[in-house]
Amino acid sequence: MKNIKLVLMYEGTGYFGFASQRDVPTVEGCLKRSLKNLYSGDVPVVGASRTDRGVHALGQVVSFKVGPKIETGDFPGALNFLLPADIRILSSEEVTCDFHARFSARGKEYCYSVFVGREIPFNLRNYAHHVRRELDVPAVNCAASHLIGEHDFTSFAQEIIGCPTRRIESIKVSEKVETMGCLLEFHFRGNGFLYKMVRTIMGTLIEVGHGKKKPDEVYEILKARDRKRAGVTAPPHGLCLIGVNYGK
Amino acid sequence: MKNIKLVLMYEGTGYFGFASQRDVPTVEGCLKRSLKNLYSGDVPVVGASRTDRGVHALGQVVSFKVGPKIETGDFPGALNFLLPADIRILSSEEVTCDFHARFSARGKEYCYSVFVGREIPFNLRNYAHHVRRELDVPAVNCAASHLIGEHDFTSFAQEIIGCPTRRIESIKVSEKVETMGCLLEFHFRGNGFLYKMVRTIMGTLIEVGHGKKKPDEVYEILKARDRKRAGVTAPPHGLCLIGVNYGK
Repeated sequence: MKNIKLVLMYEGTGYFGFASQRDVPTVEGCLKRSLKNLYSGDVPVVGASRTDRGVHALGQVVSFKVGPKIETGDFPGALNFLLPADIRILSSEEVTCDFHARFSARGKEYCYSVFVGREIPFNLRNYAHHVRRELDVPAVNCAASHLIGEHDFTSFAQEIIGCPTRRIESIKVSEKVETMGCLLEFHFRGNGFLYKMVRTIMGTLIEVGHGKKKPDEVYEILKARDRKRAGVTAPPHGLCLIGVNYGK
Repeated sequence: MKNIKLVLMYEGTGYFGFASQRDVPTVEGCLKRSLKNLYSGDVPVVGASRTDRGVHALGQVVSFKVGPKIETGDFPGALNFLLPADIRILSSEEVTCDFHARFSARGKEYCYSVFVGREIPFNLRNYAHHVRRELDVPAVNCAASHLIGEHDFTSFAQEIIGCPTRRIESIKVSEKVETMGCLLEFHFRGNGFLYKMVRTIMGTLIEVGHGKKKPDEVYEILKARDRKRAGVTAPPHGLCLIGVNYGK
């Protein structure tokens, strides 16, 4: 048996999230169906991140163990032929037998896109959260700075299974001026993120940007360890898993 | 009767072009249906550009004459409520009775997007033409320079009704480096474009970028006034009508 690591991208719009579910389309479901086609049998697959319904990925990672039937370098070609066009395998690699797409991950990078303008351009509709009122970006940056470092992120998670401590390395905001408004991209890097953590942080940062919360309130919300104190969960379609890091 | 000018955007993916056709979805068809709903009768609509199936618009312009029933400023709200989400009215304005969205136009701007990379990111799939091999951008720029000015563009048009002379003011190429490759945007400005002219120029410029044609050959193709000499017509989904100019 060899252990295979694949990097894949997908548009989450048409899927009920990454993880397999009965009777609804999921990314893992599509992947398993294609592997079953190639191996004439079930192949258990591990995904690095269980992205939610509507969330996209440019660099999701999966791993699975299979026999020698298919050359490692042939997985992208063989799977892309079988997969729907909105899921694409970008690369394949043979890894040591102890590699596990989820447990071996040392860090993850997500990007959350917000479009600020009266109308959202048609090509961003499925990929950016649309807000009409301008955001106070310096206030948002100030609020975000309270979240950098190792913290108990209970206030910003929907469900906590295990330890609620995570380390956020950086939250970087970039602004691109577009014909119809401004695209803000929030890049999150950290050692891992709790369930709905990026989206809850984003909902809270947008409230800060709109003056509904003061930047320093984010520090108090963090310390309170109470989900009710944070803002709403921002919608899924603005979120994209950029990549998973397996370095030391 | 008042003469109304609307600016609208749409994603062309789901439409058989702008112009009304029986039994298939078109942008004009949707617009007329919504206006019929508001006025309980047919309202003839004039579009500045008859964009093809799959072509997008950020700044299409239409004009039509109606009674006083609806306030001019209320058209975006009323129509956007009735229109599908992939067609959005951006603004409305009352114009003099001699204004005609097509005949009053003095210039148009189009953008053609090309993504160069092994795989195209999911969020560009419907909005950029995907080529795998790198383009020689200086050669493309040199080829494009032959097309600037007033010329007979017979070689670059599918069908010519009336005069084949048009004036291209500029073709500007911008490069954006993305995670998975490079996005090239070709901005065309001119006093008007013949049927499929931008796409035929693009198909030819891509052949130049790939070394299949020499940059100076574009000058000879232009002079030949023969469609068979130019390259293939590039696919519609890379094209977007950016705006229509009614200035002097």
